[in-house]
Amino acid sequence: MNEFHTAVIGAGSGGLTVAVGLAGFGKKVALIEKKHIGGDCTNVGCVPSKTLIHLASHSAEHERSSQEILEKVRERRDHLREEETTWIKGVKNVTVFEGEATFVNSTTLSLKLSTGEQTITAKNIVIASGSSPVVVDIPGLPREKILTNESLFDITQPPKHLVILGGGIIGCEMAFAFCKLGCEVTIIQRGARLLDRLEPEVSDLIQKRCNEVGINVHLSATATSFDVTTLTLEQQSKSVNIANVDKVLMALGRKPNLNFGLDKAGVSFNDKGVPTNQSARSNVPNIYAIGDVNLNSAFTHTANAQGRRVVQKIALPFLLQGKEAVYPSAVFTDPEIAQVGEPLAKLQQRYHPDLIRTSSFELKKTDRGYTQGLEEGFVLVHALRLTGRVLSATIVAPNASEMISLLTLAINKRASLYQLATIVFPYPVLSEAIKKLADGFVFGTLPKLPQELLAYLRFRWAKGIAKS
Amino acid sequence: MNEFHTAVIGAGSGGLTVAVGLAGFGKKVALIEKKHIGGDCTNVGCVPSKTLIHLASHSAEHERSSQEILEKVRERRDHLREEETTWIKGVKNVTVFEGEATFVNSTTLSLKLSTGEQTITAKNIVIASGSSPVVVDIPGLPREKILTNESLFDITQPPKHLVILGGGIIGCEMAFAFCKLGCEVTIIQRGARLLDRLEPEVSDLIQKRCNEVGINVHLSATATSFDVTTLTLEQQSKSVNIANVDKVLMALGRKPNLNFGLDKAGVSFNDKGVPTNQSARSNVPNIYAIGDVNLNSAFTHTANAQGRRVVQKIALPFLLQGKEAVYPSAVFTDPEIAQVGEPLAKLQQRYHPDLIRTSSFELKKTDRGYTQGLEEGFVLVHALRLTGRVLSATIVAPNASEMISLLTLAINKRASLYQLATIVFPYPVLSEAIKKLADGFVFGTLPKLPQELLAYLRFRWAKGIAKS
Repeated sequence: MNEFHTAVIGAGSGGLTVAVGLAGFGKKVALIEKKHIGGDCTNVGCVPSKTLIHLASHSAEHERSSQEILEKVRERRDHLREEETTWIKGVKNVTVFEGEATFVNSTTLSLKLSTGEQTITAKNIVIASGSSPVVVDIPGLPREKILTNESLFDITQPPKHLVILGGGIIGCEMAFAFCKLGCEVTIIQRGARLLDRLEPEVSDLIQKRCNEVGINVHLSATATSFDVTTLTLEQQSKSVNIANVDKVLMALGRKPNLNFGLDKAGVSFNDKGVPTNQSARSNVPNIYAIGDVNLNSAFTHTANAQGRRVVQKIALPFLLQGKEAVYPSAVFTDPEIAQVGEPLAKLQQRYHPDLIRTSSFELKKTDRGYTQGLEEGFVLVHALRLTGRVLSATIVAPNASEMISLLTLAINKRASLYQLATIVFPYPVLSEAIKKLADGFVFGTLPKLPQELLAYLRFRWAKGIAKS
Repeated sequence: MNEFHTAVIGAGSGGLTVAVGLAGFGKKVALIEKKHIGGDCTNVGCVPSKTLIHLASHSAEHERSSQEILEKVRERRDHLREEETTWIKGVKNVTVFEGEATFVNSTTLSLKLSTGEQTITAKNIVIASGSSPVVVDIPGLPREKILTNESLFDITQPPKHLVILGGGIIGCEMAFAFCKLGCEVTIIQRGARLLDRLEPEVSDLIQKRCNEVGINVHLSATATSFDVTTLTLEQQSKSVNIANVDKVLMALGRKPNLNFGLDKAGVSFNDKGVPTNQSARSNVPNIYAIGDVNLNSAFTHTANAQGRRVVQKIALPFLLQGKEAVYPSAVFTDPEIAQVGEPLAKLQQRYHPDLIRTSSFELKKTDRGYTQGLEEGFVLVHALRLTGRVLSATIVAPNASEMISLLTLAINKRASLYQLATIVFPYPVLSEAIKKLADGFVFGTLPKLPQELLAYLRFRWAKGIAKS
């Protein structure tokens, strides 16, 4: 009764994938969830945020008020939550435990359930417990003014003035969405640019868009105190006051949920998560860590991808597993941003800077960009010089998230820009920018083939820039 | 002075590609155009139609009236036309002749220009003269009520009731666009379904959408006569009257423009165009035919692709040319439709029907479809059973035209559904339907590998269904 083939801690994107996957192979699985089935994605992440972004962008068409939009978001979230909960409870070979798990040893978990305590054992344990928002203490800021992604989608009325601490993915996405709902929005970003893990060209464009739509942005700034409705920042050694603040959204990053006795099982971990090998296996061979608790994953889709690998590893251990694929990601601002592979600064640590060729093409120079009257957006690709092998790519476009997968396939299959130049696209589409960019590389390389070959040979095995 | 390396007849998408491409290789090119630089695409095709479709879809946001939209369409078309005209006249090695060309023999053209007649010779001649709309005679229908794609974008006021003869690509695109402008729209289709060169599933969905948005559709119907404002149809042996018709748009297909003495040059042709080999070469070795006059091309992007091949063949004749790639195409209805490769009915002529596995996935079952509240749309893929090699694909989705290229790359690189199942997509995107579909194929095949292998071996070299 209490013996399982595999126990999965956390029923979010990664955990559900593992549980259902292994159950499909006939394995007996325990799935333990302390909050809601579906995890952050369904309940406080992608699903409500993307629903909000979609409805806010189309509010004119459907003539919905901001309150109606927020209500619709909750309605769709709740509907999906119920659906997923009913579904998972009906999956054969899966036993759902609603409560908290604590490690007793590497194969035993103690469960605190509403019905009392229970101990279960499992040959394999998969940690998919997700993460929580980082919340900083700002003197004078009352608790009821603080929002995180966990409370944001429960508000029924958009705040008049929303301050967002953090200019990363969640911060920027929510800034655009709440701006469309009619709120005044102010982003406070500690670093020198928005979205500072992406290419600088992306930060420039999003900064420009913020200016255009009226989102206030304070860079190199930190919130220091709050008084009644005034938030005080320290910005380049000066003090700046932001007046009439209704709510403060903390979008400062995430910390992994690992507080359940991992030391009892002998699992190594640090404050960023659990270090694992390519198969998401921790230092303890029967314990795996996927999704937000894994150092190599921060998104729903990467948790899912790691979950699939874990299912394969556990159910079909004789199959050799290749390197973890390059994961794409998308930011649902207006326009969207999508990227796959590393930004230039990181590539330059792996390859000599003279070995990397950067090509880009502006969307407004494509015919579709022209017929749509687009004024911004681009495709940017870093490739090896001479061979044109694609290393990484960034797209900023209205549907960048749908366009990026062509480049994901290209990177995973080690395709070159020569090959991308031969693809025929329907006419007119924005993706044509990928072909134009590839053309530019080809016609820039072919006429000086001998020099390019020499440079390639010189730099191919040279060192990159040391990590600063 | 009158001797050229290559003469190009027609300055549309294909002709411009060849002229500019060869000029870049230092070849002296004559480019002859009797109407407007840019051809149909810029002047009476994709550019004005896609601008109209875009503006009509976003009219609520920008609060533009229908007249303002039509004016804007003309403005953008005229601007691009002028830009392209100025640009091509400045390209080094290209001489633009504005007038009509007639063949004297296989290397000599006689030009009728505003400045008088002129004779030129060229080692190579590329026919890129495009096509004209087919116009049928309907007794009683006055000339001023007839529109074709050539006159459609010059109207300043949308008609109250627009009848469209033909339910193909142009007919369906314009039906949705003018419906959005507030016109009453009626499509008269001779065949039994709309878009009858695409998969039947597409026709069903578009028919349903027409019903939803209020586009009247008459199938298996032919217009027989017109009286004052009433158009009479013959529909399944019955007579049907369509009242209050303002304008009739002829969207019945295209006929190639080949009326310039091809027989003098010895070029074989029929009423559908010029038969050519893989390199677009006609039966006369120095004469090529690309774009609408080529039997294998009906779109701007395919004319362009053929133009690129001709440039390669003429400028770099020593390079071997592979088979012509599989061309995708897109229909800009609402939602968009995109496809690459042949529909099932044609595939079944090449492969035994039992060798083909059809997989599909509905967009509403993806998480992005859910957050967007999508109710229709799908991805459909035909692949070889067992190996999963992708043969053709159809996508119906809001941005199908941007999503299809992943499948174009897959087909051209002979990728399998096993490979597509391993791609990680950003979350949440509609393209995930491609992965889900691939998953379905993989999990449907793996458990019965022995049977699938036997079936594959049995049908791989079996004959398809004879062409009816």
